Amino acid sequence: MRTIHTAVLGASGFAGGELVRLLAAHPAFEVTFLGGGASAGSALRDVHPHLAGIGPLELLAIEPEAVAAQAELVFCALPHGAAAAIAPSLLEAGCTVIDLSGDHRLAAEEYPRWYGFEHPDPAWLDKAIYGLPELFGDRLPGAKLVASPGCFATPAILGCAPLLDAGLVEADAIAVDGKTGISGAGRAVTEATSFAATDGSIRPYRVSSHQHTPEIERGIELASGAAPRVLFAPHLVPTVRGVVTTCYLRLREGASTEDLTEALRASYAGRAFVRVLPAGGMVDAKRTTGTNLVELQAVADPRSGTAVVIGAIDNLIKGAAGQAIQAANLVHRLDEATALPTTAGYP
Amino acid sequence: MRTIHTAVLGASGFAGGELVRLLAAHPAFEVTFLGGGASAGSALRDVHPHLAGIGPLELLAIEPEAVAAQAELVFCALPHGAAAAIAPSLLEAGCTVIDLSGDHRLAAEEYPRWYGFEHPDPAWLDKAIYGLPELFGDRLPGAKLVASPGCFATPAILGCAPLLDAGLVEADAIAVDGKTGISGAGRAVTEATSFAATDGSIRPYRVSSHQHTPEIERGIELASGAAPRVLFAPHLVPTVRGVVTTCYLRLREGASTEDLTEALRASYAGRAFVRVLPAGGMVDAKRTTGTNLVELQAVADPRSGTAVVIGAIDNLIKGAAGQAIQAANLVHRLDEATALPTTAGYP
Amino acid sequence: MRTIHTAVLGASGFAGGELVRLLAAHPAFEVTFLGGGASAGSALRDVHPHLAGIGPLELLAIEPEAVAAQAELVFCALPHGAAAAIAPSLLEAGCTVIDLSGDHRLAAEEYPRWYGFEHPDPAWLDKAIYGLPELFGDRLPGAKLVASPGCFATPAILGCAPLLDAGLVEADAIAVDGKTGISGAGRAVTEATSFAATDGSIRPYRVSSHQHTPEIERGIELASGAAPRVLFAPHLVPTVRGVVTTCYLRLREGASTEDLTEALRASYAGRAFVRVLPAGGMVDAKRTTGTNLVELQAVADPRSGTAVVIGAIDNLIKGAAGQAIQAANLVHRLDEATALPTTAGYP
Amino acid sequence: MRTIHTAVLGASGFAGGELVRLLAAHPAFEVTFLGGGASAGSALRDVHPHLAGIGPLELLAIEPEAVAAQAELVFCALPHGAAAAIAPSLLEAGCTVIDLSGDHRLAAEEYPRWYGFEHPDPAWLDKAIYGLPELFGDRLPGAKLVASPGCFATPAILGCAPLLDAGLVEADAIAVDGKTGISGAGRAVTEATSFAATDGSIRPYRVSSHQHTPEIERGIELASGAAPRVLFAPHLVPTVRGVVTTCYLRLREGASTEDLTEALRASYAGRAFVRVLPAGGMVDAKRTTGTNLVELQAVADPRSGTAVVIGAIDNLIKGAAGQAIQAANLVHRLDEATALPTTAGYP
Repeated sequence: MRTIHTAVLGASGFAGGELVRLLAAHPAFEVTFLGGGASAGSALRDVHPHLAGIGPLELLAIEPEAVAAQAELVFCALPHGAAAAIAPSLLEAGCTVIDLSGDHRLAAEEYPRWYGFEHPDPAWLDKAIYGLPELFGDRLPGAKLVASPGCFATPAILGCAPLLDAGLVEADAIAVDGKTGISGAGRAVTEATSFAATDGSIRPYRVSSHQHTPEIERGIELASGAAPRVLFAPHLVPTVRGVVTTCYLRLREGASTEDLTEALRASYAGRAFVRVLPAGGMVDAKRTTGTNLVELQAVADPRSGTAVVIGAIDNLIKGAAGQAIQAANLVHRLDEATALPTTAGYP
Repeated sequence: MRTIHTAVLGASGFAGGELVRLLAAHPAFEVTFLGGGASAGSALRDVHPHLAGIGPLELLAIEPEAVAAQAELVFCALPHGAAAAIAPSLLEAGCTVIDLSGDHRLAAEEYPRWYGFEHPDPAWLDKAIYGLPELFGDRLPGAKLVASPGCFATPAILGCAPLLDAGLVEADAIAVDGKTGISGAGRAVTEATSFAATDGSIRPYRVSSHQHTPEIERGIELASGAAPRVLFAPHLVPTVRGVVTTCYLRLREGASTEDLTEALRASYAGRAFVRVLPAGGMVDAKRTTGTNLVELQAVADPRSGTAVVIGAIDNLIKGAAGQAIQAANLVHRLDEATALPTTAGYP
Repeated sequence: MRTIHTAVLGASGFAGGELVRLLAAHPAFEVTFLGGGASAGSALRDVHPHLAGIGPLELLAIEPEAVAAQAELVFCALPHGAAAAIAPSLLEAGCTVIDLSGDHRLAAEEYPRWYGFEHPDPAWLDKAIYGLPELFGDRLPGAKLVASPGCFATPAILGCAPLLDAGLVEADAIAVDGKTGISGAGRAVTEATSFAATDGSIRPYRVSSHQHTPEIERGIELASGAAPRVLFAPHLVPTVRGVVTTCYLRLREGASTEDLTEALRASYAGRAFVRVLPAGGMVDAKRTTGTNLVELQAVADPRSGTAVVIGAIDNLIKGAAGQAIQAANLVHRLDEATALPTTAGYP
Repeated sequence: MRTIHTAVLGASGFAGGELVRLLAAHPAFEVTFLGGGASAGSALRDVHPHLAGIGPLELLAIEPEAVAAQAELVFCALPHGAAAAIAPSLLEAGCTVIDLSGDHRLAAEEYPRWYGFEHPDPAWLDKAIYGLPELFGDRLPGAKLVASPGCFATPAILGCAPLLDAGLVEADAIAVDGKTGISGAGRAVTEATSFAATDGSIRPYRVSSHQHTPEIERGIELASGAAPRVLFAPHLVPTVRGVVTTCYLRLREGASTEDLTEALRASYAGRAFVRVLPAGGMVDAKRTTGTNLVELQAVADPRSGTAVVIGAIDNLIKGAAGQAIQAANLVHRLDEATALPTTAGYP
């Protein structure tokens, strides 16, 4: 297997740390550059004491030429806005870029409303591949710029798209109720992410205004042709990892739980990371912790005319670092599961 | 204030323990009888070590005559099925019964499907008052049999009914997404309620088949005249107390977040326990912990044609023991807030 | 009961918030002044949303004259150093000061080593009464300046002093192992107090250098005459509230678990807040949550020649706000239990 | 690498599940037999849903002949008492037995007091090797019967032995304060291990009577020659995984934190799983979660004449399944780190 020199930009964050940890076991992607902002100049072991065993790496300031000189594959785990600013230089220098931020996931005209900035580079944006391997994996081999999906968007799109594609649900309004652990908020500290505020708390936030709203719409449209309107309401729950999305759609008459389940199963047959539960099974985010798995379940409720499809992932693995590596594996025509765990420790 | 001798049946459970604790500070309701099943014969301090300070009470076997001989007010915190079996004898002996179980909340014909038994006493069932004081408080003074609402039903009905009543949302399918702490499952131990299984877990259960589904429908109908179909999907999250319900309804054209908020505010003006958050505010179950409060917030999303109304309570207080005492206060024409906390400790 | 106008300085912190909440139910102490630093000018409901029900109070800048003009009783929940700076002005203006910080707990010469500053006012320091009511309550009536004990010091001193006093243990080195919830670190946010860092973590900190070390020594000496050397090792565990101290002492030959237990029981007979567990009982911090209780248990292990005495409290109540109010009650010759909860909610 | 057929007895428990998960990635040990008691006859995926990806294995009843017919290496994760009953048959049939229970850790005469039974097989007991690889690894190659150490004993012995060996501390009474997550109690459900009882709880248990007391004494004696008396006080804290032991010993005059740290470092130089923190560093159980690591730190407090040595592990890996595999690796002359993780995910 050819060694591919690899950079992780934004290595000091939670997703950056998981990228470094998972890549340490990768047979082809060798980390040769770690980039940080405020943490530039620090040793990896000081930024991430749990990674002390990984080696004497140091985080460096992010200069595109320096990155491109040392790496051909770049994982970009920078804050929204920063990725779009640096990606063109890296791409023009020949790097492959896997962007974990939201900077390459939407159409250019959506950025002002949902991310609060004008997209600086619509040309490259148009060329980005949305890196949800289970639905768009065939577009990934050889891709230059991959927009790795958001943590809520991943299980929501994976759950809804097959049901729409199979004609089992209506293509109008979809309500997506999200539950997430606190690590989804990133490593920056605020009172809201403190243990004191979060333990014992269940609380919604950014109801109807979260930036994953248009991403879910776009992903479903890309996969199924349907063009739904999504209402997305995320909630924080007191755990570190885990995202569950519960999607409510209008059920077409006659569709049963078995039909919904079969549509999911058919869509993901043979995929390494999707576990579709049989009718009556219930997903549990805990069974995905530390893995790149997604668990899916569907329920038809003809009584109220509603279809429910629920998905669970580890937001830092399948919702961030793991999915980015999975996409990079496919870009490089490797087995998508290379270096990605599929079995959780328990309890 | 006249002293009212009071019994707590099912005193060994979580709701029973909270009843005993809260009633210890009540100026009129004096606990004179504690009833238990397997725990009959035990001292209160052995069943509930945290109540050691409350006195040398003992739990006794539940014989209707013995209860009626010692108490005129009976809080019945027994398992589903047991309350319906004992209530007639108590009522006929002249007791006032506040039933915290589901045994007097639905129409008789709903019991086989949702609770798995034929209701043994449809006659008394018809006379039960649904004890949600903020909506039906005027029916409570002098009531003999009160069906105290379920933990999920409480914030869901309180949130939806005013919006329907004000004509701001459609009266068809409503999706209710519930999140609950583990104490809602009661004190009986199972692997599912163990710390090992629950910490780090987010998981749905009984999607579309939970018994609060018809209760929410009935409560909304009782309050607003609308007859909606409800899909209810509860989820367990890793905390002890707290219920949040997020309800998704079809928004009528032109209705705004301010309209929804104003409808809530108008419905609950002057109530001791309802806190309607202003537009942009976000509820937090943690702020209700240990209190009889309900926090409500509403969001209109014209883009997707959806109204969202979210409610948060402490499931053991406003969702169980506190609400039952609130109803009993009104039955006895006392201030509804007597002996009920309105301010949470924090953090 | 005469109304006593009361100020809470440092009202924006966790202890400050609990003071405001508990004092809202106090029949004599009426809060007339709230003081803050950075939060001066804010409404109480913005600083502590959970206290929204308590009234339209505003936090003001802390000027000694303004405080003294509006309050005769001052609870000072300021950071270490700030209390010593402001206390003299308040005292000279005739206020009674209950200081929750460490600024009046030690001898002047200890401050440079343990708190990192020269004490600015040794004269008042000498007059401060150490406000541990169960041991020094008789010195409190009429006191002008009370040093309210630290959260770890409270159960450690209450556990050890009676054993030394009864001659059941040796008066040399004592090892105190502390476990605390995160709220002991205060409201300021750091990475160490984030949910992400704390959930799943058990970690020691400041082993042998924590400022409660000399406080425990001094408290034991004050109560028993013994002058032990203490090694104190605090540990953070993932919960919000609760402190447990496990103290290891050399057991005198012949002393049994029953002897130790009896010494504790005799010392605290008739006290409102001390629950001495019988031999074989095990304390649980959870049973003290939200209360001013302390649970104590003792074990003699003749095999290794060790006595173990364990104490548990709620660090924000008995370890801070509650104990300060208890002392203030005694200063004003009220029942020490006035407005202080003795029964925890559970679970 | 030769394939070694391997059995896991007690596969339905937490340690059994972790053995199966870790062994799935082992290049030499191939699981060919899973044994259970009440779970015999069940599919692995039903007993451990999180292991659904591992294959169609079934748990079988534990008959020694059947086990020996299918496996040469047997991990025995059975309850105390059951391992001693079955080990002789397995050993006589030629199997190598790695016993994770306490049945082969003590001298025969200790069993009645600490485990409550007469040891049924003192002859084999005498031949058992205490499988703490960092101290006794040289005795493991070719061993037939390995007593894998207890979760508390592991960090306590690893911390204390080098200090005694180096003559830096006295060899008399040692106080060991243990903190553990709930998974140490095993998978059986009780009220004490419920989420409701454990969340928010800090509580000691079995103070001075826990069965790891003599094991710690014996391990230290085996490693250092010293024969100390240990007082051991375990405490439950609200987390799933993680054990921290804080050991208090009498410091010899003149010994410094640097001396203690250097003794630890010298003892474990070159070992794969021991991370000795520099003076001033503080261990964190969270950094060991999911790994076979042990973190150690030492502090000398000449002021009180005390040495403190603190160790942290993941109780299910280094304290159970991982350490057993580490020992089995050495028995089979493989690299001790084979198939064992050394880097934790975070957070």
